[in-house]
Amino acid sequence: MHVNGKQYSTIWYDSDNHHVSIIDQTRLPHQFTIIQLKSLDDFCHAIQSMQVRGAPLIGATAAFGLAMAVIDDSNTENISHAYNTLLATRPTAVNLRWALDRISATIKKADKEQQGQIALAEAERIRQEDIKTCEAIGEHGLALITEFQTQKSGNEVINILTHCNAGWLATVDWGTALAPIYKAHNQGLPIHVWVDETRPRNQGASLTAWELSQHGIPHTVISDNTGGHLMQNDMVDLCIVGTDRTTASGDVCNKIGTYLKALAAADNGIPFYVALPASTVDWTIDDGLKDIPIEIRDAREVTHISGKHHNGDIVEIQLVEDSTALNYAFDVTPARLVSGLITEHGIFSANRSSLNQLKQNIAH
Amino acid sequence: MHVNGKQYSTIWYDSDNHHVSIIDQTRLPHQFTIIQLKSLDDFCHAIQSMQVRGAPLIGATAAFGLAMAVIDDSNTENISHAYNTLLATRPTAVNLRWALDRISATIKKADKEQQGQIALAEAERIRQEDIKTCEAIGEHGLALITEFQTQKSGNEVINILTHCNAGWLATVDWGTALAPIYKAHNQGLPIHVWVDETRPRNQGASLTAWELSQHGIPHTVISDNTGGHLMQNDMVDLCIVGTDRTTASGDVCNKIGTYLKALAAADNGIPFYVALPASTVDWTIDDGLKDIPIEIRDAREVTHISGKHHNGDIVEIQLVEDSTALNYAFDVTPARLVSGLITEHGIFSANRSSLNQLKQNIAH
Repeated sequence: MHVNGKQYSTIWYDSDNHHVSIIDQTRLPHQFTIIQLKSLDDFCHAIQSMQVRGAPLIGATAAFGLAMAVIDDSNTENISHAYNTLLATRPTAVNLRWALDRISATIKKADKEQQGQIALAEAERIRQEDIKTCEAIGEHGLALITEFQTQKSGNEVINILTHCNAGWLATVDWGTALAPIYKAHNQGLPIHVWVDETRPRNQGASLTAWELSQHGIPHTVISDNTGGHLMQNDMVDLCIVGTDRTTASGDVCNKIGTYLKALAAADNGIPFYVALPASTVDWTIDDGLKDIPIEIRDAREVTHISGKHHNGDIVEIQLVEDSTALNYAFDVTPARLVSGLITEHGIFSANRSSLNQLKQNIAH
Repeated sequence: MHVNGKQYSTIWYDSDNHHVSIIDQTRLPHQFTIIQLKSLDDFCHAIQSMQVRGAPLIGATAAFGLAMAVIDDSNTENISHAYNTLLATRPTAVNLRWALDRISATIKKADKEQQGQIALAEAERIRQEDIKTCEAIGEHGLALITEFQTQKSGNEVINILTHCNAGWLATVDWGTALAPIYKAHNQGLPIHVWVDETRPRNQGASLTAWELSQHGIPHTVISDNTGGHLMQNDMVDLCIVGTDRTTASGDVCNKIGTYLKALAAADNGIPFYVALPASTVDWTIDDGLKDIPIEIRDAREVTHISGKHHNGDIVEIQLVEDSTALNYAFDVTPARLVSGLITEHGIFSANRSSLNQLKQNIAH
């Protein structure tokens, strides 16, 4: 997508200089900084410090990190060390292990001296596949948005509410929840996005708003408390959010607060869609509320917040005195509140039988 | 209630020094500062800059402000000027006009030279009545909490979720939503309060948490996104919130985000109570969604935030770049989602016939 009018993705290999470039997302929205990763330490630090975040992007970064390590030294011990060190950066990210395993499996068949280039080619394949998957999610979501458009009179704006950041910054390009929005905007459909700021880490206000702003898509930042009021007053046509993990029966685990927006959508008859790569469905679990453990993050994310001081410095300030805080990172939206799951294979209902069809699609 | 172990109210007249003392709420929770009000300018600034806020406290402050002006100069022109200047400080606050009218009506019957002392006595009466009203809300709410306690085994903690600040800082003492909580805690009932931070102005994190902390009531600050997850996981026994305006059929207009919590409570079978002085029922309107205009406040409250820098300074930082924001201050929770209205006259159902009984109670 566009930044300062130029086309970017979140990660790419620069063959001239033999390094991998990423956008330092910890500095957004205040500073747009490209940084170069070369050593194993660079890659681990990028993932751990959340310069890159979002399951698909973490996977791609780890894949490049392992490939670069293999190019450096294809000794089995070194490869194993790089694999384990990268795996330990964010232990709960499913895509991380998947990407590392894929690189490992590919090089096993190859000669030692070729392993580096083979690993790098595989990392690039993972990168390209992610772009294709997200673009396909965008195409299926576009068909949905187009339907909404035909129900509206003339060139009336379609208002879409989203929570957190499931945009191109969370993937290699396009994003998941935002892919249909980019597709619709690029086709000239009149779109306006309500962006939940998404406390406590404010990924909506700092990442989603920045993405949309850079790509020229009309949007408005709102506090997380606001969506219900907008839905009661016919100011939202549909909701699209991402998901970190979806059960075989269609329960959706996503950023904390998603459930509240799904309730408001249901109460006001507004469609609530979830966009996801099929790979994030966890076929081994059924009841999201019972089976998905919810990460508790540092209370400091609630009691303190960072932003830009008027002197230009990024500073952290304290919001709460003498009180404890509790910081659940995700919640579970029951399938009954989900209108549909937008995947790269098409749109599926949030129930076991419809998801079984998706499973069969993947197997074929 | 207690601050640093000492009993305080939010406003009081100091006869020795002939000034009115208030707590500067703009500096909370970081600094506890008492300031003195004497001139009309002092009172107007206190209301306008939100050193005092909350409808009952604004009313009491305006009453003292007008009384002090009358003591200064009981010339009709001066009284009229003070009345109009105070009224213009927060044009939408209903209690403001009510308090000023009450002072005006009282002094009209009196001799010029006595008007000052009569006005001051009436302001003190308004102050005392507010304390009594809130304490009565607390007593009725306490009976409700005690019922919940008997359903629990032994000395199990009762978890109450609240939104925004409807505590003693919003009134003269006790508060509305928090009055039952103070009563229950003072009686030795084991209470724990979930405090929504309440973006964008963060009155939960900065005022409610501070109040509860100073009075020694166990509580935890959470992002506004968190309440639904807690309710899904049996971590909330009941919700109690305040209201700025309630319709004759029981629709409740309160701080933005209240509606989302009411939806989650209903979805999880958790009682959702609203505490209010009967004076905040607007008997002239019925349908809250249609009939209550919602204030839109400065977008800067969403895009910027204030807090304490590690050097101790209170600084403002910027959260959003290049994006617009929209800042609705309130939303409407339909009566169907409200379990009951806790008033100084008892607990009433959120419907027309039950509220008619409240109306008859007031008339008697």
